[in-house]
Amino acid sequence: MTSEEKQDTPLKRHIRSVIFGTETKLGRWFDIGLIICILFSVLLIILDTIDSYHQQYGQAIYYAEWAFTWLFTIEYLLRLYGSINRWAYMRSFYGIVDLLSILPSFLALIFPGANVSLAFRILRLFRVFRVLKLLRYLSEGNLLLKAMIQSRRKVFIFFFSVSLIIMALSVVMYVVEGPGNGFTSIPKSMYWTIVTITTVGYGDITPQTNLGQAIASLTMLIGYSIIAIPTGILTAEISHEMVAERDLRKCSNCGTRGHNLQALFCHHCGSELEQHQSEGKS
Amino acid sequence: MTSEEKQDTPLKRHIRSVIFGTETKLGRWFDIGLIICILFSVLLIILDTIDSYHQQYGQAIYYAEWAFTWLFTIEYLLRLYGSINRWAYMRSFYGIVDLLSILPSFLALIFPGANVSLAFRILRLFRVFRVLKLLRYLSEGNLLLKAMIQSRRKVFIFFFSVSLIIMALSVVMYVVEGPGNGFTSIPKSMYWTIVTITTVGYGDITPQTNLGQAIASLTMLIGYSIIAIPTGILTAEISHEMVAERDLRKCSNCGTRGHNLQALFCHHCGSELEQHQSEGKS
Amino acid sequence: MTSEEKQDTPLKRHIRSVIFGTETKLGRWFDIGLIICILFSVLLIILDTIDSYHQQYGQAIYYAEWAFTWLFTIEYLLRLYGSINRWAYMRSFYGIVDLLSILPSFLALIFPGANVSLAFRILRLFRVFRVLKLLRYLSEGNLLLKAMIQSRRKVFIFFFSVSLIIMALSVVMYVVEGPGNGFTSIPKSMYWTIVTITTVGYGDITPQTNLGQAIASLTMLIGYSIIAIPTGILTAEISHEMVAERDLRKCSNCGTRGHNLQALFCHHCGSELEQHQSEGKS
Amino acid sequence: MTSEEKQDTPLKRHIRSVIFGTETKLGRWFDIGLIICILFSVLLIILDTIDSYHQQYGQAIYYAEWAFTWLFTIEYLLRLYGSINRWAYMRSFYGIVDLLSILPSFLALIFPGANVSLAFRILRLFRVFRVLKLLRYLSEGNLLLKAMIQSRRKVFIFFFSVSLIIMALSVVMYVVEGPGNGFTSIPKSMYWTIVTITTVGYGDITPQTNLGQAIASLTMLIGYSIIAIPTGILTAEISHEMVAERDLRKCSNCGTRGHNLQALFCHHCGSELEQHQSEGKS
Repeated sequence: MTSEEKQDTPLKRHIRSVIFGTETKLGRWFDIGLIICILFSVLLIILDTIDSYHQQYGQAIYYAEWAFTWLFTIEYLLRLYGSINRWAYMRSFYGIVDLLSILPSFLALIFPGANVSLAFRILRLFRVFRVLKLLRYLSEGNLLLKAMIQSRRKVFIFFFSVSLIIMALSVVMYVVEGPGNGFTSIPKSMYWTIVTITTVGYGDITPQTNLGQAIASLTMLIGYSIIAIPTGILTAEISHEMVAERDLRKCSNCGTRGHNLQALFCHHCGSELEQHQSEGKS
Repeated sequence: MTSEEKQDTPLKRHIRSVIFGTETKLGRWFDIGLIICILFSVLLIILDTIDSYHQQYGQAIYYAEWAFTWLFTIEYLLRLYGSINRWAYMRSFYGIVDLLSILPSFLALIFPGANVSLAFRILRLFRVFRVLKLLRYLSEGNLLLKAMIQSRRKVFIFFFSVSLIIMALSVVMYVVEGPGNGFTSIPKSMYWTIVTITTVGYGDITPQTNLGQAIASLTMLIGYSIIAIPTGILTAEISHEMVAERDLRKCSNCGTRGHNLQALFCHHCGSELEQHQSEGKS
Repeated sequence: MTSEEKQDTPLKRHIRSVIFGTETKLGRWFDIGLIICILFSVLLIILDTIDSYHQQYGQAIYYAEWAFTWLFTIEYLLRLYGSINRWAYMRSFYGIVDLLSILPSFLALIFPGANVSLAFRILRLFRVFRVLKLLRYLSEGNLLLKAMIQSRRKVFIFFFSVSLIIMALSVVMYVVEGPGNGFTSIPKSMYWTIVTITTVGYGDITPQTNLGQAIASLTMLIGYSIIAIPTGILTAEISHEMVAERDLRKCSNCGTRGHNLQALFCHHCGSELEQHQSEGKS
Repeated sequence: MTSEEKQDTPLKRHIRSVIFGTETKLGRWFDIGLIICILFSVLLIILDTIDSYHQQYGQAIYYAEWAFTWLFTIEYLLRLYGSINRWAYMRSFYGIVDLLSILPSFLALIFPGANVSLAFRILRLFRVFRVLKLLRYLSEGNLLLKAMIQSRRKVFIFFFSVSLIIMALSVVMYVVEGPGNGFTSIPKSMYWTIVTITTVGYGDITPQTNLGQAIASLTMLIGYSIIAIPTGILTAEISHEMVAERDLRKCSNCGTRGHNLQALFCHHCGSELEQHQSEGKS
């Protein structure tokens, strides 16, 4: 409908069906190949940080890395060429992710030198985020995200209340235990409180005084109790969404609602039901 | 309706609309400014406990602290002046929080001297509770609080049973492991039991004997199982509240109940529904 | 109706109403006094295990302990005298708890001597279980217990499956890490697996090899996932019980079911509902 | 119906009813005996890994082990002989488990020698998996498994998203903390992230820098929040399955649905209901 659509050539349309679509055989093979490339390139980056691997295969990993970078560059350019609205693709979430997965390698090439080796190392590492490209293969409109968005206000209130509790307990523990027992500042005390209230419990900072251990016990019991709250909120939301989804399944013959998502026939009149779609197309 | 209302001047009414209300533009700006002030003043108190910051910026933080104290004092006086029933405001939860957020600074001024430096240090720290003033911006009648109040009896029974289990396990572990392995007294043993049953697991006290490790394993499995109970109670409550809320949405035309909270039209007769209100006005 | 009931004297009936009942003023005062005695006597036992308290107040605690023992002995005899069926009381759960709370003191008196001091110490400690007498004050037929009994089969299957997983992971970790890294035997390895799978994580035994850390990561993710299962079972049960309870509230006028537990009037015909009773009588 | 069925002799039928069935008295005794044998043989294997037991009872355990191996071999051969379709039994899950529980002992006999002692030790240990034979006694078609299968897609999306978060946080922590503080490589950093996000918290690797501790705190809060998601999914599924099960209970007289699983009579017309079957036959 835009002027760009008029310049739509058969080549473009073919590229689009292969790269963006999964209906054709070639499109499916392209997607499987892309997933393998992403996983393999991420694996290389991870292995390269292990010292023994870096010393033995460092050079080979470096060349393989560049090969993957060129592959992803070609993929990016093809996507740009094939898309109906190029600017829209570039600004889209996946467009940015695609760009970010090739940019670090080229930036490291432009700014070489030993004095920028740290920045270079970090830049190269962030190519791990290439794995975000796999998000493309998750069906978007899923129940989980919907439930999370629905409950965002309740979850925000929960985290706000938890921060208040963390702050209060941090001040009290800083006063009770003091710098001598590892609670050297309020931020350190907040770190301890979060370690305790989330039931992680490293044990790198532990209360030494009797009063401190009593307050720590209270902190743990609070953490243990409030762990229930986000679960409760989300469960109720997901349950609600599921019931809502079932309620939407209406028999086109008799009008009865509330069929199971797996049901094939209306439980009232026996006529066939339309198939449920929201659970992904894979 | 009280005699105090008769003394309501236009100035008072204006101050009230700015300080307590959010309808006018000035009222909204006042609220945003207040939130920024609270967050900034709390940040200063926290940073002041970090040694390096205290040595470098201690003096500046001290002056900034006093500036915030004066700002909150003016706010408190304005709230007092603008409220219809002053005594009711002073006794209210927010009135007390407002007072407590300025009192420590003045008390520290009245009782100076090196010999009260510890009390002074503690008093100053409790100004962190200024952050409680942010509670004002949470809509009160929310689902979460309602669900928690509804389930208070069940949660009490749960915590009472858990204390019984903790006490029993503490005595057994004190007898089995003894003072030699860190279980120096029953309170210390109770501290260990709480650390274990809440799955925090610092590792500062760990069982050394085989029997102790077996009982510890049992303790962990108990903790792992009963973590489910508060979640179950709260989830059922929240779910119940949600269904109850949906049931309250009645179509004024045909009388059908059970509409989604987001629904705009009756799913039975198609007439427009009144908008749902309980989820906050933001 | 039994022959024992014929010997029921006014004195007996009065004692019964005071000790077992809560309807009379004296009965309520007796209960409050008993609760205070229990909590105070348990506190004494706990404090006595703290070394500094034992050295300073040991003698006083010893005398107070005997005072409480005599009080509970008198209470036990009065309960025995006042009950309609004495043998039934003695065999009942509370009868046994009452007896166990006084027996250790007398047993320690009968078998004195330095050579039995350990057994004596342990016996005295188990008087902490006096706290179980407080169970009397919880309303019995509560939702929680019902939900747990309903889900006992599902929970058993869950724990059976978890034990299989724990056993399998223990063997694998014992083979991978070996005695050199703290996994000295399969029971020790099972202790580590339980510490890890319940997300306690003391850190007294940690995997040192790369493969061991990979398997440990898997163990943690398993533990993190299956924590959901008992919660799910119990939540569904509690939710189910709640709906069932609501469904039982039937309007005596029009027969409509499903009223809120807090509802006072029928939502269909408006006639008054009978009050809901199952949430305890306190 | 197959040719194998024609060769069905009374002896075969008798063996089948004893070994596979639980209807006859002999069949039940066989099952109870088998369960005891399995538990006892697994206990022996576990105890043999404890050094003191191995030195004292090693020889006795060795002989007992062989006795159990022969018992299970006889059981396997009888099952093979008694089954209608032998090849189907051998390929079945339980057939493989039965074979695996006897194979290691014989393999260790075939390949002796000191140089294969490690492999031998490992092989013997895996006989612990004999415990899997107990799976036979769990009713198959249970609610739990159904709920898990129903939610497999949602759980996969959840674990995929969690892996993305773990990978991102691992790279950030590797960059922030570096090899000096124990984050020697990205795999090691991933191990730390999993230890933290699952709230296990060994404390063998802990962040030392301020920024690292801030990111760690964030990691814990993320872990604390997302623990809710699998619970929410599974709870909603189980709840859904339960409602579906209730809905299936239809009165054969009046056609009303939605009876309690424990209900004996229709709540509408009072006629007797067919008994519910899906909760196992024990």
